[in-house]
Amino acid sequence: MDATTRIEAVTCHRDTDGQLHVRLIDQRLLPTEEIWRDLTDPEDVAQGITDMIVRGAPAIGVTAGYGLAQAMQVAVGDGRSGDVTDDASWDAAWQRWSARFAATRPTAVNLFWAIDRLAARAEADAALGSTADALQARASGLFAEAVAIHDEDRAACAAMGRHGAALLPDSGGVLHHCNTGALATGGIGTALGVLRAAVAAGKDIHVWVDETRPYLQGARLTAWECVQDDLPATLITDNMAGWMMQQGRIQAAIVGSDRIAANGDVANKIGTYAVAVLCKHHGIPFYVAAPTSTVDLACPSGAEIPIEQRTPREVTHVGGWAPAELLPPLQVAPEHIGIENPAFDVTPAELVTAIITERGVARPPFAADLAAMVAEAQR
Amino acid sequence: MDATTRIEAVTCHRDTDGQLHVRLIDQRLLPTEEIWRDLTDPEDVAQGITDMIVRGAPAIGVTAGYGLAQAMQVAVGDGRSGDVTDDASWDAAWQRWSARFAATRPTAVNLFWAIDRLAARAEADAALGSTADALQARASGLFAEAVAIHDEDRAACAAMGRHGAALLPDSGGVLHHCNTGALATGGIGTALGVLRAAVAAGKDIHVWVDETRPYLQGARLTAWECVQDDLPATLITDNMAGWMMQQGRIQAAIVGSDRIAANGDVANKIGTYAVAVLCKHHGIPFYVAAPTSTVDLACPSGAEIPIEQRTPREVTHVGGWAPAELLPPLQVAPEHIGIENPAFDVTPAELVTAIITERGVARPPFAADLAAMVAEAQR
Repeated sequence: MDATTRIEAVTCHRDTDGQLHVRLIDQRLLPTEEIWRDLTDPEDVAQGITDMIVRGAPAIGVTAGYGLAQAMQVAVGDGRSGDVTDDASWDAAWQRWSARFAATRPTAVNLFWAIDRLAARAEADAALGSTADALQARASGLFAEAVAIHDEDRAACAAMGRHGAALLPDSGGVLHHCNTGALATGGIGTALGVLRAAVAAGKDIHVWVDETRPYLQGARLTAWECVQDDLPATLITDNMAGWMMQQGRIQAAIVGSDRIAANGDVANKIGTYAVAVLCKHHGIPFYVAAPTSTVDLACPSGAEIPIEQRTPREVTHVGGWAPAELLPPLQVAPEHIGIENPAFDVTPAELVTAIITERGVARPPFAADLAAMVAEAQR
Repeated sequence: MDATTRIEAVTCHRDTDGQLHVRLIDQRLLPTEEIWRDLTDPEDVAQGITDMIVRGAPAIGVTAGYGLAQAMQVAVGDGRSGDVTDDASWDAAWQRWSARFAATRPTAVNLFWAIDRLAARAEADAALGSTADALQARASGLFAEAVAIHDEDRAACAAMGRHGAALLPDSGGVLHHCNTGALATGGIGTALGVLRAAVAAGKDIHVWVDETRPYLQGARLTAWECVQDDLPATLITDNMAGWMMQQGRIQAAIVGSDRIAANGDVANKIGTYAVAVLCKHHGIPFYVAAPTSTVDLACPSGAEIPIEQRTPREVTHVGGWAPAELLPPLQVAPEHIGIENPAFDVTPAELVTAIITERGVARPPFAADLAAMVAEAQR
């Protein structure tokens, strides 16, 4: 039985009037408030991506696909009221909206990938012509493409879950870092999806959720997901993980990834590297779960991955994930102290036990397995 | 030149009217507000210890000494107005106030040690008699004893600084965990005192301050001390330390200790063990700085040290160090998530490079050096 989740970070449906609704849970307000945003204006969807109402690379891609489809649906209207009436006005609307969505989170690779997918569909469907019916069909085609992106991401999560669940012990504690779940993807998640799948398969898994300072994605989002889906879980601060391993309470660790180099070096949320070192010291397997789209074969090793530095305020103040008027940040450090705030670190391949993708499990030395999986995915 | 600090967590002086003033910086409000409490009522001093206006084992001991001396000074009054007029009323006041201070933080060993020191002095000085002048002299004797406790702690910090500074590299980054500085002691501190001493000795040391979740003693207190004393310092979250080591930016780590077993196993603030493992992986020395009073020869190894579990609220809410009416805690985790919150962990002796005490530097295997130092201290 494939694992499921009660959480849908992003959905989109067409109402009886033909209007597309993009529905997002406002992740800035979790875990204390559960507010869903029902968005019928594509500008609100674009702003929602920028404002991080939705975050997580795959979830951003899915949202951008829906938002762009919604924008063109609004543009063609219901056949009477749209601004778009011919090829020229379609092209103008497309240019405007694809640029708008591309500008929402300029470093999110999945965003551009989703826009490119819809662009290819738009180009293919241009042959349908520019009658009112044809324009409607072209907008519907974009929505279908956005649904396909979502479905594929859901299927990729499910496949990672199946492949990864088999690796986990029949019983034991598994450490999870950051958020990699239903809030970050279109499905059950990557690393957290594997944990969901292992539990669904009947394994007696206890999830150790590290809080993931400075942005607390573990405490705010992963812990919330575990409560929603009744996953057995315990939240700890990042600096407790080593001690829990020493006490024999953690038997494996699993994380997601933002970018995997051709040699298997793994860029992921800051703190991942320390988890991998602690696993090595305790003889515990360290797993990475990420779709093949994360594998960058053009990047030979982690040394070539630039590390983004984020604002010092994330370290000196707690609470910056929410609008300040809703949640005034709490200052925890003095003025004038120096700060480093790398968003990511790189875990060398030699600390990685296996990389779980939707195509299967890559093993060390990773280069051959990763290249084969990427080739298969692109076939 | 011995290192100095601009910070005095605890002071006590006699004003021109003969009244004793205990002065504490309110550590609950740091780093955003610097409020000194000038206390002339010993009940306020006792409550200040309970309320954690002052914290850190040695600083608590110094404060309790001053508070108890103040209580007996108030009790004997100025020779006209005191409640204590003879041996019986002295004994009653002593019993009441020593019990009051013993109840402020029932697990703080330094507290009882300070009370015992004053009790011994009180017993010796009972021979002075119970004339008005003699009672004044007995109260003054207690104040002198409290000053001696403070002076000895200051001297112990200075000695640790001298011994430890010699171990640190001439230049490089040194990771520091929790707060072990002037706020926690009567002098320059233990581990942070060693860093102050190394800088004072002309070494080109950069202090890497980890924030020390969940209670953020590093971010709130150690970072504030570094700013006050112009120590070159950078604050990071706990999960960044490993990455900074991997990047070659940290050449040593130094921590304090709450209790050291006879074999050199070190109990200290949660997260210490993970720092030690990261040091081991990167071939970086891991130092512990603590006075010999921390060494418990009756405790054979770390396995015998009980680990206090603290309230889940420290993990689920940020800000609980301050009174809620002054600083409403910020909830960062969902209701109903499981929590572990061990206050301490134990670092096995084999991960410890050296233990720095006021008597010198203990080296592996630690048992012989530690036993000799404790014997010397008790001579």
